[in-house]
Amino acid sequence: MVCAIVGLGLMGGSFGLATRNYFTKIIGVDHNKSHCKDALKLGLVDEIVELKDLEKADVIILAIPIRGIISVLNKLSKLSLKKDVTIIDFGSTKESIIKECPKNIRKNLVASHPMTGTEYSGPNAAIADLYKNKIMVVCDIEDSGEKQVETAFDIFKFLEMKVKIMNSKEHDRHAAFISHMPHIVSFSIANSVLNQEDREHIVTLAAGGFKDMSRLAKSNPEMWGDIFRENKKNLLDSIEAFKKELKKAKDMIENEKWEELKRWMAKGNELHKIM
Amino acid sequence: MVCAIVGLGLMGGSFGLATRNYFTKIIGVDHNKSHCKDALKLGLVDEIVELKDLEKADVIILAIPIRGIISVLNKLSKLSLKKDVTIIDFGSTKESIIKECPKNIRKNLVASHPMTGTEYSGPNAAIADLYKNKIMVVCDIEDSGEKQVETAFDIFKFLEMKVKIMNSKEHDRHAAFISHMPHIVSFSIANSVLNQEDREHIVTLAAGGFKDMSRLAKSNPEMWGDIFRENKKNLLDSIEAFKKELKKAKDMIENEKWEELKRWMAKGNELHKIM
Repeated sequence: MVCAIVGLGLMGGSFGLATRNYFTKIIGVDHNKSHCKDALKLGLVDEIVELKDLEKADVIILAIPIRGIISVLNKLSKLSLKKDVTIIDFGSTKESIIKECPKNIRKNLVASHPMTGTEYSGPNAAIADLYKNKIMVVCDIEDSGEKQVETAFDIFKFLEMKVKIMNSKEHDRHAAFISHMPHIVSFSIANSVLNQEDREHIVTLAAGGFKDMSRLAKSNPEMWGDIFRENKKNLLDSIEAFKKELKKAKDMIENEKWEELKRWMAKGNELHKIM
Repeated sequence: MVCAIVGLGLMGGSFGLATRNYFTKIIGVDHNKSHCKDALKLGLVDEIVELKDLEKADVIILAIPIRGIISVLNKLSKLSLKKDVTIIDFGSTKESIIKECPKNIRKNLVASHPMTGTEYSGPNAAIADLYKNKIMVVCDIEDSGEKQVETAFDIFKFLEMKVKIMNSKEHDRHAAFISHMPHIVSFSIANSVLNQEDREHIVTLAAGGFKDMSRLAKSNPEMWGDIFRENKKNLLDSIEAFKKELKKAKDMIENEKWEELKRWMAKGNELHKIM
């Protein structure tokens, strides 16, 4: 089977590394020339091609930002793709992608979201075990072709991933809580420290806790800005839910309700029992 | 030299493990009987003693909550301690401890804050390398005895720690930004997810980012409640600074100012250049 990867950054590049022994050939597309060069040098793909060359692919992976995925899907719908081609997108939100997927290739699409990543990006950030033991959410599976779902699941199994099936609305709401809002929070922590006059002095005290809480603030603004735009409503809802809790805590501190604050923290402890 | 450790939890226990080859004998005090038993069994200390037995100690480590440190300092001030005894407290805030330290033992005290820890507590959480390569903040050093500072620094060097000297006011303010506020934020994230109806479903999607952002919400409510109480004003100031950034982000998302939001994120990226 020939696999085409569109987008040779962290996600696409890692996918190439991880499926070297699954596909007979891996071809790659990226509008960034230097990414193409790096991807070849790092052995993430065998060959760099143009979008129209995807007509020979059996599997197409779309590992680019959400708006890019929608645009490529539209272009793919006008090519003479193999009839049973399996298109797997890795978009971080799913509702808009599925809604805007051209009808003639909807059954070819298996809308997926790998729950993995690092704070780094680009082909040089690619690692072979990025997907191993991680969760792959697959959305609105009833509208994908049976053969395509089978192909996709076989690849995910090869990657040693756990598949969770979900509807896209639900996925986008959960992703806001589990990923998008925490990114906004991490950036807010980073910026609140950077705004202090003695910021350099402050960060000399940073230990593990602060490093964890500010790690997501290393993330790529272009990429995340697009994700936030795509999931605006859910993101605002999750920020609102977070703000409510923060306000509770602030009020308890202000009013010196220490026992109540401890109970609130003890409740927070319970998260790790269900996680 | 005989070392006495008051408080045989994560911090005190780890100190015992790490200084086994530095002191000729390590004695321990803890009001929790089961902690005493565990500490002996785990070899964190050689012997469990009473507070009055600290009269034979050359070095006394206070690894208990802030109010406990202040109470023990008052008790120690009434004992016949060795004249040159070095008392090192590991309190997470420093101003109140230094202010409330009895005058007759002020020069014996080297007020310190090791910038390390884990989300776990108790003697079973003790690890030998907890202090290695970490920062030890030492506050208001001009009021400590020369001999005591020398002894403390020698111990910190043995632990392979980097010492930072700071005034206590400054320390407490920085600690709010680097540690206390991020704890409140992490608990707020945990509780905001726990309040959702489909909480179990949401956390199935948790990947590395969410795990990092919610790790501090595993922390001990009793211990952290006391720290928050002790550092109330600085904590509220740092929460306020954080809230201001969160509000900025929320407003930009609401008003779809995506380019401005990306610039705000790019600014957050800079934290890791100075950290």
